[in-house]
Amino acid sequence: MRISELSTATGVAVPTLKFYRREGLLHAGASTSPNQARYDETHVARVRLVRAMVEIAGLSTATAQRVIAALDDERMPLNTLFGVVQRAVTTPAALTVHSSSTGEETDGARIIAELCLRRGWNVHRGNPGLATAAAVLDAYVQLDRADLLLTLDAYADAADTVARSDLGAVSGAGDITAMTDIVVIGTVLGDSLLSGLRRIAQESESQRRFSAPPASLAGSEESC
Amino acid sequence: MRISELSTATGVAVPTLKFYRREGLLHAGASTSPNQARYDETHVARVRLVRAMVEIAGLSTATAQRVIAALDDERMPLNTLFGVVQRAVTTPAALTVHSSSTGEETDGARIIAELCLRRGWNVHRGNPGLATAAAVLDAYVQLDRADLLLTLDAYADAADTVARSDLGAVSGAGDITAMTDIVVIGTVLGDSLLSGLRRIAQESESQRRFSAPPASLAGSEESC
Repeated sequence: MRISELSTATGVAVPTLKFYRREGLLHAGASTSPNQARYDETHVARVRLVRAMVEIAGLSTATAQRVIAALDDERMPLNTLFGVVQRAVTTPAALTVHSSSTGEETDGARIIAELCLRRGWNVHRGNPGLATAAAVLDAYVQLDRADLLLTLDAYADAADTVARSDLGAVSGAGDITAMTDIVVIGTVLGDSLLSGLRRIAQESESQRRFSAPPASLAGSEESC
Repeated sequence: MRISELSTATGVAVPTLKFYRREGLLHAGASTSPNQARYDETHVARVRLVRAMVEIAGLSTATAQRVIAALDDERMPLNTLFGVVQRAVTTPAALTVHSSSTGEETDGARIIAELCLRRGWNVHRGNPGLATAAAVLDAYVQLDRADLLLTLDAYADAADTVARSDLGAVSGAGDITAMTDIVVIGTVLGDSLLSGLRRIAQESESQRRFSAPPASLAGSEESC
């Protein structure tokens, strides 16, 4: 198909497709003349993936590029791909908060290390989640909200639940291409799904605890 | 304290403090002369909060501004504050993906509505999580990974677990100021904590399922 047809198939405007192409987010089509190229279903799939990463997960173009480069590297083992994608979608500042300190281990880092031991979580020191989680706990303490540390075990339970489900989906895929897709799509979009569902559950739980009795809500046409 | 002392107390450079001040992220100090102001502990706390929102949660300055404005609005009831903060920290694109479509309800939106019914989640149509979660499910289908829909119930279980813990922390706070702080800090940083722990649990589960037997890892000095 031509670029105009790729645009129709994906709902993405031609100038945006050309931008994706220039930024290395979309592989080249087969040249049919100096000014024209032919695109196929692999391009449709790729455009949809880029769009989901940028529009739904809110990734920057640079971050989406790193994910796409990892996806296109066929020699990368699955575990390595996981790490690369995880690192790409983690806020860079969260990773540097720790290393920019005095070099001593913070309270947050210690609490997370103990949590890993307690739960039998076996991970490399370079896992980006370690720095992120430790930085959040340090922030809770610094912001005089050490009481939020009490939520840690519930958050860890939740993380275990989704990780088992994530890896179950990877294991259940038929072949390595499908497994790779699931690692990338599940890691990038799973964070958005989880935070979306958290907002729904939070409002529902907040209504239950702090609002007038349900009778007053029953008549509302605004409820889900 | 003077601005230089505020800088020392928070570890944030003076030009950055002036930037926060100009952008409305930091309230004015008490004027002591046309060119000088005096700051206090409320400024220290606010700078730490802004820094955590920007550096750890990765919020833009504009988003942090909206959260701060809601926090400073003392007339805002707790439930409303929750909604405003949730909306502020949701990727704007995720909210528009749905409304920019043909106006028909998508498969993702239907699946999420059924999920709410099944779980007894009572929320307003405007909850930003509804659009985000539906957009992710629609993306799974569009990306030919409908098998990822099977992870939905595990994600919903996880969301319930953290939401109950979040609201438990709010209820457990002593007064309305503490409750407000917890709503803001927990909503903004809780997403980062959850995604961090998810990355740790994913790597651990991935090692367990796809790697050589644990014996080969036991000698590694890189493990957590």
